[in-house]
Amino acid sequence: MSRLIDRMTVAGVGLIGGSLALAARAAGVVGEVTGLGRSEANLEVARSRGLVDRVTRDPAVAADADVIVLAVPVGSCAALATTLRAHARPGTLLTDVGSVKAQVVAGLERAWAGHGPVVGAHPIAGSEEAGANAARADLFRGRRCVLTPTPATDPAALACVRALWEAVGARVEELAPDVHDAILARVSHVPHLVAYALVAAATGARAAGHDLMAYAGSGFRDTTRIAGSPAEVWRDIALANAPAVLAALGEFRAALARLESLVAAGDGAGLEAELAAARTARRHLRVV
Amino acid sequence: MSRLIDRMTVAGVGLIGGSLALAARAAGVVGEVTGLGRSEANLEVARSRGLVDRVTRDPAVAADADVIVLAVPVGSCAALATTLRAHARPGTLLTDVGSVKAQVVAGLERAWAGHGPVVGAHPIAGSEEAGANAARADLFRGRRCVLTPTPATDPAALACVRALWEAVGARVEELAPDVHDAILARVSHVPHLVAYALVAAATGARAAGHDLMAYAGSGFRDTTRIAGSPAEVWRDIALANAPAVLAALGEFRAALARLESLVAAGDGAGLEAELAAARTARRHLRVV
Repeated sequence: MSRLIDRMTVAGVGLIGGSLALAARAAGVVGEVTGLGRSEANLEVARSRGLVDRVTRDPAVAADADVIVLAVPVGSCAALATTLRAHARPGTLLTDVGSVKAQVVAGLERAWAGHGPVVGAHPIAGSEEAGANAARADLFRGRRCVLTPTPATDPAALACVRALWEAVGARVEELAPDVHDAILARVSHVPHLVAYALVAAATGARAAGHDLMAYAGSGFRDTTRIAGSPAEVWRDIALANAPAVLAALGEFRAALARLESLVAAGDGAGLEAELAAARTARRHLRVV
Repeated sequence: MSRLIDRMTVAGVGLIGGSLALAARAAGVVGEVTGLGRSEANLEVARSRGLVDRVTRDPAVAADADVIVLAVPVGSCAALATTLRAHARPGTLLTDVGSVKAQVVAGLERAWAGHGPVVGAHPIAGSEEAGANAARADLFRGRRCVLTPTPATDPAALACVRALWEAVGARVEELAPDVHDAILARVSHVPHLVAYALVAAATGARAAGHDLMAYAGSGFRDTTRIAGSPAEVWRDIALANAPAVLAALGEFRAALARLESLVAAGDGAGLEAELAAARTARRHLRVV
C-alpha cells in the first residue's frame, strides 16, 4: 500500500497504540513511527518487539510528526495535547483512539485550536491485557473503527485517518460523538462496571468461611474477564462519559430489577419469557 | 478402573448428563448406561454419538437401574423422582447434578423416602451450550464436583457417588447444601441473571436509530456469553435458590451502586481504588 503518513508519533505504546504502530508499519502506510511514553520498561518492550522505529520519553519528539496518535487513558488526552502543542509544527494532525468521544474530542479541539486538524477515532478492539507486550498486528482486522467528526473536522484529515484505519484492516464508519458515546456506554462501559461490581461483590461475600472465588466456574470467569482491565483506563472512561454511563446504568438496573421481581414473586413463566428473549438476542449477536 | 455401578440410568442426556454417561463409560466404571429423555431427536443424538448404550422415553427403564442420575432442570427433579419411584427397585441410588442443592435434595429425599439412598451432587462445569451434541468426555476433568450430604445421607451411597465423579476426573468435595447454595448464588446464579439483564438492557436501548448490539466488542461478548444458556434451566435455578439469589443480588446492587455514586460524584481517586481492588481480585482468580 502506498504511504499515507511520513512520520507518525504514537503517544502511549500499549495494547492499542502499539498494535496500531505495528500494523501500520506492516501495511507500509507510514514511514517512521516514534513511540512516546512514560514508562522506560514499556518503551523498551515496544522497541525490542519492533512495534515502533524509535522510542522516547521526550515530548519534543512531536516536532518531527506529521500525525500524532494519542493512545493514553482518555482523561490524559487533553493535557497531553496541550503539552505536545508546544512542540508540534502547525498543521500536525492530531487523532486519538479513546473509548469516549464527545468530551475527549472537544478537549482535543480546544487544545489544538488554531494549530492543526483534529480527528476523533475509536477502534472497537482490545482485551483486558495491556501494554506493549499485548500488542499485535492483527488486532484491528475486521473490527469496527468509529470516526467521530464534528463541524470543525477537516475533510482531508478525516480521510487520512480513515485510510490509516482501513489500512490496518478495520471497518471504518462515522458517528456523531454523542451517539457513539450513548452506544458504547451500553455495550462496553456499563458491562465493564458490572464486571468489576460482580468481582467486588463475590470477593466481599463469605459463606461459612469459604472463599467464594474458589467455586467460580467458566461462567464467572468469562463474565468478569474484563474486570482484569486497567483501573486507570476505565476510571477515565466512566468519568469522561458519565452522563451516558449513568443513564445506561439506570437502564441496566431496571432490566435486572425486572428479573429480581419475577424471582421474588416466584413467577416462572414471566422469568422464563424474559430469559428466553435475552437468550435469543444474545444468540443473534455476531461479534466481529 | 474397576466397575462401580452395573446399570446406570441418566435422566436427561444433555450437556451434563451426556458428558457424565460418556465419561463414566470411557473410564470403565459403569456397565450399561441407559439414557432416558423426552426429546426423540436429542436421544437419537445421544445414541448415535455413543454417549449411552441405549435410549428410551419410557420411565419404566428405571426398573433396570442400580443408580439413577437426574440431569434435568432442577425444577423437574422432584416430580421426575416421584415418577421413577413407581418403577425403580427398592435400594436404587438416586443422585442429581443440579446447580441448586438445598431445595432439590430435600425434594428428592421426600420423593425417595423409604425407597433408597439419595445423594446430591453438583459438578461445577458446563457452558452455555446444551444438549447431547455438546456432551464431551473431558467436561469434568480437573473441575470441582460438590457433594451435599444431609443427615439422611447413606455413607455407602455417598462413597459410590464420590467414586463415580472421581472416576470422570472431578475434584470432589463436600459442602452443606445451604452453604453450596449461598456460594453458587454469588459466583454463578447472579452472574447469569446479570448477563441476561445486560443483553436485555442493550437490546431494548436505541441510540439515534442504531442497533447497539452491532457495536458490541469482545468484552460484551464474553460478559454476556452465559446469557446464551437455556432459559428453562436458569429459571429453575433462580426460583429454587430464590432466597440466596435475592440476597446475592442485593450485594451485587450495593457494589454497583458504590461505583455509580463515585461516577456521579466525579470521584476519580475513589473510583480507581474500587476498580483496582476488583481487578486485583480478578487477576488472582484461577478458574480450573
